[in-house]
Amino acid sequence: MIKFTNDELQIVKKLEILKNEAGSHSPSIITFRQKLPEVEIKVDACFLSNPYATDLFLEYFDEEILKSGKIRDLLECYPSQNGVIAEILAEFLQINAKNIFIGNGAIEIIQAVIHNFTRRKIMINIPTFSSYYEYVKEGVEVVYNELSKDNDYGLDVDSYIELVKLHRPDTIVLINPNNPNGAYTRIKDVQRILDELSFVDNVIIDESFIHFAYETENYQLVSLAHLVEKYPNLIVLKSMSKDFGIAGIRAGYGIMKESYVKSLLDSGYLWNSNGFAEYFFRLYTQKDFAVKYDKVRIKYIVETLEFIHELKQLPGIKVYPSMANFVLIELMDGIKSTDFVSKLLITYGIYIRTCDDKIGLKGQFIRLASRSKMENDYIIQSLKACIEMNVILDLVNETTG
Amino acid sequence: MIKFTNDELQIVKKLEILKNEAGSHSPSIITFRQKLPEVEIKVDACFLSNPYATDLFLEYFDEEILKSGKIRDLLECYPSQNGVIAEILAEFLQINAKNIFIGNGAIEIIQAVIHNFTRRKIMINIPTFSSYYEYVKEGVEVVYNELSKDNDYGLDVDSYIELVKLHRPDTIVLINPNNPNGAYTRIKDVQRILDELSFVDNVIIDESFIHFAYETENYQLVSLAHLVEKYPNLIVLKSMSKDFGIAGIRAGYGIMKESYVKSLLDSGYLWNSNGFAEYFFRLYTQKDFAVKYDKVRIKYIVETLEFIHELKQLPGIKVYPSMANFVLIELMDGIKSTDFVSKLLITYGIYIRTCDDKIGLKGQFIRLASRSKMENDYIIQSLKACIEMNVILDLVNETTG
Repeated sequence: MIKFTNDELQIVKKLEILKNEAGSHSPSIITFRQKLPEVEIKVDACFLSNPYATDLFLEYFDEEILKSGKIRDLLECYPSQNGVIAEILAEFLQINAKNIFIGNGAIEIIQAVIHNFTRRKIMINIPTFSSYYEYVKEGVEVVYNELSKDNDYGLDVDSYIELVKLHRPDTIVLINPNNPNGAYTRIKDVQRILDELSFVDNVIIDESFIHFAYETENYQLVSLAHLVEKYPNLIVLKSMSKDFGIAGIRAGYGIMKESYVKSLLDSGYLWNSNGFAEYFFRLYTQKDFAVKYDKVRIKYIVETLEFIHELKQLPGIKVYPSMANFVLIELMDGIKSTDFVSKLLITYGIYIRTCDDKIGLKGQFIRLASRSKMENDYIIQSLKACIEMNVILDLVNETTG
Repeated sequence: MIKFTNDELQIVKKLEILKNEAGSHSPSIITFRQKLPEVEIKVDACFLSNPYATDLFLEYFDEEILKSGKIRDLLECYPSQNGVIAEILAEFLQINAKNIFIGNGAIEIIQAVIHNFTRRKIMINIPTFSSYYEYVKEGVEVVYNELSKDNDYGLDVDSYIELVKLHRPDTIVLINPNNPNGAYTRIKDVQRILDELSFVDNVIIDESFIHFAYETENYQLVSLAHLVEKYPNLIVLKSMSKDFGIAGIRAGYGIMKESYVKSLLDSGYLWNSNGFAEYFFRLYTQKDFAVKYDKVRIKYIVETLEFIHELKQLPGIKVYPSMANFVLIELMDGIKSTDFVSKLLITYGIYIRTCDDKIGLKGQFIRLASRSKMENDYIIQSLKACIEMNVILDLVNETTG
């Protein structure tokens, strides 16, 4: 059992209020600093992004935007329209511009797709990213496919296909790797799903964490985006916040059939980008940047693997298999996840995400992001200390109790 | 008649293609530079913003964000949720946070409101900002109220009220001052509209240009936003791009009844802001900034009045009354607006908006933004030269023809 002093309990209470106000998501770090200034966050391990990619982006931003004085243009001028930015991406992604829809973050595309194209029934694997069921419109039925704890919350492709055939939803969602557990479904299996389920109108594959997954030893990038022409029901969504570490810019894109892109553009979403996102998309397609980015991507994957390996050595927790830049951790020995999160924050300044609100999880879970090597080391030490303290307290309780 | 050389005609053709690709809006300056590099834009008089406000914003941005190194936070971290930013504005605007909805530019709020709350019939004054009718969903009837040329495209409040009573739409839109002509309806008259038309579900008042309008000699700010509690059918929309000169950031807000804000937040729009917009909104409510902003707002109004006064002295054009930061100009003597726009761009590097695509205008029209004093002087000289050249060419034609 984790114990708190009276002062700490005051903070625990405030934390609870803050979390409730943020709904099914974590409060942003800016909100956090504003509303809970008494807590110093040293490491934001809620934050699912590659910090080395942020460094790289900042290098370019400094050189190309700040030193050149172009910052005024980014702030002052209207960004280009959706279709113009799509054209920039098209060549780089080798995908027809008419199949590309630019979003103000992937979240906007999730909303747009589910509001506009899901009409009858949606099947969602749980645990999942909550927006997928929260954005479902009134009158649309939601069927949950509970991923099995025995299978480490991974997707059993055969039984998934059977279940979709049974329920016949018009929309299915597969986050790959999945959030919040990081389980990865191999490309050939996803293709099998597409082959078998051509009767489903919308197969949403969310590849927001795909830059951290790999199938070959050299960590080569994988993606299904190029299959949109072959499978007209395929919708690939991509957040750029995680892999490029630029969540403040809000950049994402969706690859989908031409008629869907047209329908979204006709109903609005014309200027839904901003000057900084447009700059990012142009940079993203720049060859020298792409080469450097791939290096920091692989560096981060390798360090994340080390981080996960070290986490697995810690007693009292179970680390679930992940191919994303975070891990789902189950707390054993009766530790409550909200207590654990509060303790880590108050004593060590580490901000992590409780998974209390995630439907489909059975037990006490937290989700922990991989950060820089230095931060990861600090997280490991702090977790260890926190778990040991808990063991000692339990022993004391047993002896005195 | 305006004449072009063969080289110029090539550019005229490209201009036409670019305009067609951008639909009913102007191509952005970034798109323009990318696709038509042979044309150097010296003055963007398409661009409806206060350049002095951009200067002021940049001063603060440089000090508070760049010099402090906080730029990394803005780029890297998730912005706060919609409701958190609404709270920041609430105190400053003296409006309940639950009545405030933050938008990724006003355009997103126009889309959200019209998609979600207009169910049956919308009445739109024309000429107008085209998104208002473009975003209307299938099945919703659009009734146009043609503003009268004899009344300089101003709103005749009495006949407007009668017409709304006759057609009984569920939504009406009033841009105040109106775009593209800048005609202003006084606050007491708008209140009369609200008093008379309580049966209309949604009275959308778009105040995107209201910072340039005034009713008193000291140019004091006017707004209807505080009336949302009194009139539950009132929806006030506000772009920040024009008055603060920060279109690249995408910041806007809407004031509307609590149930509408709740309904929009429940269906998405959670993280539709970005780090820079959040910074702007925080700055906007800062007292020292507000004081300095009001000074540059008034400086710009005074210069715009001078600009309009000088424009009125030019022969061959009619300048319509405006209380916005732009004027609608009618070209007389048979000049075509597309020719005039092309000539000004190619010969003088001045980019202005043709109003060819504006329904409800009868004649050849352009819309001209007020920019900095120096730019305005250059615009005046160039317009004068362009009109004189036209007169000379006509004389030559008459003599030789």
